[in-house]
Amino acid sequence: MAKGVEWALHTLLNLDMIGGGPVGSGQLAEAHGLSASYLNKQLQQLARAGLVVSVPGPRGGFRLARPLEDITLLDVVEAIEGSTKIFHCTEIRCGGRIGALSPPPTGACAVNAAMRRAEQAWYQALAAQTLAEIRAEVDSPSVRQIVRSALE
Amino acid sequence: MAKGVEWALHTLLNLDMIGGGPVGSGQLAEAHGLSASYLNKQLQQLARAGLVVSVPGPRGGFRLARPLEDITLLDVVEAIEGSTKIFHCTEIRCGGRIGALSPPPTGACAVNAAMRRAEQAWYQALAAQTLAEIRAEVDSPSVRQIVRSALE
Repeated sequence: MAKGVEWALHTLLNLDMIGGGPVGSGQLAEAHGLSASYLNKQLQQLARAGLVVSVPGPRGGFRLARPLEDITLLDVVEAIEGSTKIFHCTEIRCGGRIGALSPPPTGACAVNAAMRRAEQAWYQALAAQTLAEIRAEVDSPSVRQIVRSALE
Repeated sequence: MAKGVEWALHTLLNLDMIGGGPVGSGQLAEAHGLSASYLNKQLQQLARAGLVVSVPGPRGGFRLARPLEDITLLDVVEAIEGSTKIFHCTEIRCGGRIGALSPPPTGACAVNAAMRRAEQAWYQALAAQTLAEIRAEVDSPSVRQIVRSALE
């Protein structure tokens, strides 16, 4: 998984801590010492996914599109990663001597189906956690003050 | 995830279908039209993990070390992939302006902890499925005959 997921999760939490934004991608990147151009790409993907809104103009930047209660880990992973497949079936059952000797398959590969079931458990656990729950674990007036100072 | 996991899962099922082995890595590779040298590396990793046994000699090769009832998807993923981390925390909370303004962290990052919980659900789903259960979905006398013919 690309580091963009980590960057996006922290950036969404930071935007919430300061009241939603907008904040420029350069400031958001400096808050954690990140590459502004790479973070900007992640923010564009979050905007395409409807998690943030890009606000044009000299005082623009990115602001949260909805409250953290309505953003799950799966929303962020899918926004950044696109396909969230962990296991990629290349249908080797159809290749080589076994493929040549076998009738054409009629259903999904049982190996692929089993790996998919495990991935479903991961998706469900990602979808079951909101960013508001993560915020609840770190929130305090002093943390909000630090994020505000860092994003000024 | 590397294709080695797919290769290893099918190869373990094939070894079981013919009674356990030993079968050389070249024959096991030809069964699915795979690279013999790459599959041999995966088989060495399965041997190190105790899932297969390397049998030396002209009639040697690899044989199953234990029944498929005792091999889970997690056993195979860990044998091939080593670390099964999907999300890699780079501790960006300690970098940049927020890191400079914050006291040193005393606990795990809440973002990382949330992503770990989702990974735990994946591990548990991998550990809950044995290769015997996958075999049960495909097993038949004709399938066993095809695998035997392919590995002769």
